[in-house]
Amino acid sequence: MGASDNADTLTHGEAIPDWRVLEPMDLSPILSAALDAFYETGFHGTSVREIARRVGVTVPALYYHHENKEGLLIALLELSTSDVLSRAHAADEDAGGDIVQRLSNVIEAIVLRMTMRARLAALEGEARYLSPENRQRYREVRKGVERLVRQIVEEGTEAGVFDVEDPAETTRALLGMCQSIPRWYHAQGTLGPEAVAKKYVNIALKMVGARSE
Amino acid sequence: MGASDNADTLTHGEAIPDWRVLEPMDLSPILSAALDAFYETGFHGTSVREIARRVGVTVPALYYHHENKEGLLIALLELSTSDVLSRAHAADEDAGGDIVQRLSNVIEAIVLRMTMRARLAALEGEARYLSPENRQRYREVRKGVERLVRQIVEEGTEAGVFDVEDPAETTRALLGMCQSIPRWYHAQGTLGPEAVAKKYVNIALKMVGARSE
Repeated sequence: MGASDNADTLTHGEAIPDWRVLEPMDLSPILSAALDAFYETGFHGTSVREIARRVGVTVPALYYHHENKEGLLIALLELSTSDVLSRAHAADEDAGGDIVQRLSNVIEAIVLRMTMRARLAALEGEARYLSPENRQRYREVRKGVERLVRQIVEEGTEAGVFDVEDPAETTRALLGMCQSIPRWYHAQGTLGPEAVAKKYVNIALKMVGARSE
Repeated sequence: MGASDNADTLTHGEAIPDWRVLEPMDLSPILSAALDAFYETGFHGTSVREIARRVGVTVPALYYHHENKEGLLIALLELSTSDVLSRAHAADEDAGGDIVQRLSNVIEAIVLRMTMRARLAALEGEARYLSPENRQRYREVRKGVERLVRQIVEEGTEAGVFDVEDPAETTRALLGMCQSIPRWYHAQGTLGPEAVAKKYVNIALKMVGARSE
């Protein structure tokens, strides 16, 4: 609260009231149009001119706000990643220290985001088109989520609550199964985000060798 | 097994000598160039002219072999999917009926392909750009792998060897964690395909509630 001045920070500065509630992302018209275009025709298949056309601004007006097309992709990826990172941390803190609850909450937060922001989450596949420096920078931001999950998996394993041979690989497998959700989630439509999250929490607890429920 | 006559089937018809051995895919020069181009700049970011330039043929010569750009993507996706499908089936049959070994073999086959053919596997992300009819057709082919894994998970659960609440969701989670491998595998490089496959087999057995080893 009172942090609304920090509109330029990666995590938006504001405290998240409830990590389970995903309001629509507050994207600028330009970023919103860029997201639509990248989703529909991919990063390389989209021109700055096409994005400007969708927003109804001139190309120079667009360049006033964003350096170039890659700048738009970077902005979207960083918004998306910092959103999931702050939610995952809020979910972790909300668990009150219990290691099984911590993993459950964090997986729930990640899956809710994969289902409710499937298009934004799907954009991560375009990250490989970033220039090496930007890809590296983006990887660092994204590693925050991996670091959090890995820390929980390691702590749980050390405490004997989880039974995991290779925490790094299990962390990647956990995140990998979540990252694939946007590929099929839209096509399905029978399960709501909460129901999917609940199922994935159960599967995640199995993966780390903890009891579900 | 006398099945070499069925050369027109989706699975190439020929018996696979060893599902663990992945020879380089025998792609035509045009398909090979299309794979390179799609991987580097995405489906929408690639022109037929660019593919022709890479092969060193004229655009009309390329159209002689393939209807259009989407035809090239479909051809690559179908080759890729039928390759993993026939390997997965060979791996399954090789397990001699033991349900734990069946799941282990099939996951091993899938992971070997994800690591050794990471670029071809990564192309699956472009499938969402297919026209509705082609996407539907491709989904049917791809479902073969999902059907096989799900059948094993269901049989193992019914036999009481696996402990799975929702075989359909666990199947998607198993495939999802494997599908994400191409996103990070190239960047890593410390583990060989066999080592990665072994780790994922152990994680998969945990996911279905079976004992590893």
